[in-house]
Amino acid sequence: MEAGNPKPDKLCVHTITTKKWTLGEAVDAYSAEGIRGISVWQDAAAQAGIGTSRRILEASDLEVVSYVRGGFFPSSSSSARLAAIDNNRRMLDEAAELGSPLLVMVCGADPKISLAHAREQIQLGLEAILPYAEALGIKLGIEPLHPMYADTRSAINTLGTANDLAAAIDHPLCGVVIDVYHLWWDPALEVEIIRCGRKGKLFAYHICDWRVPTTDLLNDRGLMGEGCIPLKEIRHWVQKAGFDGYHEVEIFSERHWARDPYEFLKDVVYAYHHHS
Amino acid sequence: MEAGNPKPDKLCVHTITTKKWTLGEAVDAYSAEGIRGISVWQDAAAQAGIGTSRRILEASDLEVVSYVRGGFFPSSSSSARLAAIDNNRRMLDEAAELGSPLLVMVCGADPKISLAHAREQIQLGLEAILPYAEALGIKLGIEPLHPMYADTRSAINTLGTANDLAAAIDHPLCGVVIDVYHLWWDPALEVEIIRCGRKGKLFAYHICDWRVPTTDLLNDRGLMGEGCIPLKEIRHWVQKAGFDGYHEVEIFSERHWARDPYEFLKDVVYAYHHHS
Repeated sequence: MEAGNPKPDKLCVHTITTKKWTLGEAVDAYSAEGIRGISVWQDAAAQAGIGTSRRILEASDLEVVSYVRGGFFPSSSSSARLAAIDNNRRMLDEAAELGSPLLVMVCGADPKISLAHAREQIQLGLEAILPYAEALGIKLGIEPLHPMYADTRSAINTLGTANDLAAAIDHPLCGVVIDVYHLWWDPALEVEIIRCGRKGKLFAYHICDWRVPTTDLLNDRGLMGEGCIPLKEIRHWVQKAGFDGYHEVEIFSERHWARDPYEFLKDVVYAYHHHS
Repeated sequence: MEAGNPKPDKLCVHTITTKKWTLGEAVDAYSAEGIRGISVWQDAAAQAGIGTSRRILEASDLEVVSYVRGGFFPSSSSSARLAAIDNNRRMLDEAAELGSPLLVMVCGADPKISLAHAREQIQLGLEAILPYAEALGIKLGIEPLHPMYADTRSAINTLGTANDLAAAIDHPLCGVVIDVYHLWWDPALEVEIIRCGRKGKLFAYHICDWRVPTTDLLNDRGLMGEGCIPLKEIRHWVQKAGFDGYHEVEIFSERHWARDPYEFLKDVVYAYHHHS
């Protein structure tokens, strides 16, 4: 595994990673640790209220990297599909209010319909909200999810599929989000990273680790260095592809959530510098 | 989803599916239910002893479809890699003794080495045992495993990767095994099924279902019809690809294992006829 070039200090933390904290507590703690980027989850913003969240963020030195997470377009119910589009427009409003340049899209899946059909509905959903995103100047980042989430969370399960979808939509505001947790196993990963990077479609980069063994399908992610993902190798590919944005730490972990969040945040900073 | 042609009565059950039973009990029960194929797991054969297992199987009307499971080639330790090759040769001896035409290969992975390196070791391992398999006339079936098992169980995680490996090895006794549980999410599945089927490389077909939600990474498989896998559509592709072998029911499920195995077996037969 290659180490790649030294990485810039582009650490960003997702509020879900330290979910015990309110948005205000997270902003204070991240700033105190010298972190420069924050990705805001909707629950954290809703708890404080969007207006208050905006003031908290504006008063800080932190850069808002992304708002998380829109999408969930497919459904066997047409009224649910329309409701999803409305919900995504509301999230775009919130993203604009918070000053986020990007809405992360977890595209969705419905076990009642085929994955091929779900992918068509995802494309229609993205195309339906793109004019609104364009009016607000907010990017949509298609995040492929691990195949173990193909039942209910996303019918987009490889970077190749996400790149194909972005190419089919062919809009400068529509690109992809790479999360190592979902994609590390894919033999085509390097090629697909280069493909989206060279086209300016690589909008965000999420890091964590895959624990061995992993004991829960959702909430057993590891801190960088705790698992088997070749993080430095993947970072090298991402940088080679021209990406120079933030490295966003997004960890769902009952184990880490149960800890003192200040201690955990210090470990996040250390792991970012030494294991990613 | 297309229903495809009526399927032949080619039901086969893996002994692990009814693991409460000894091999003798399983053989009696499968025969009583009119099942014609059995795939024997090593633990079931070892419990009875290989010689006794052979006599039990010979005395039955059941056809031995496969012996499960060899492989696990990659390791950061060269002595472990040699031990794996020896172990696979022993399993080929056992497969021959039991009258199985096929050894199913769960190829292995080691979180200490890269997946690319693991794939090289898998190819070397398969090539090392092929002359022995040839002497015994036993086929080796590369079974790609779901990407959620890429940490420790297999570096071969799509049918495309398995087909590439079989093509690289290019030996008439080396082909692939399709298990819907591992592969159902893959947009390339139909194309890759046709690819291996048309080349005579599709050696076996395993069925079960993906439960929604799935609560355990290993032992929460569903009976056909209990989940979201498009089983009839995939069967149609497999038949279109020229496969006319058994449809093997391989279910790891704490929930079903806790039931009366006779009741469960009746449900397996029903689900095979109605939901696969």
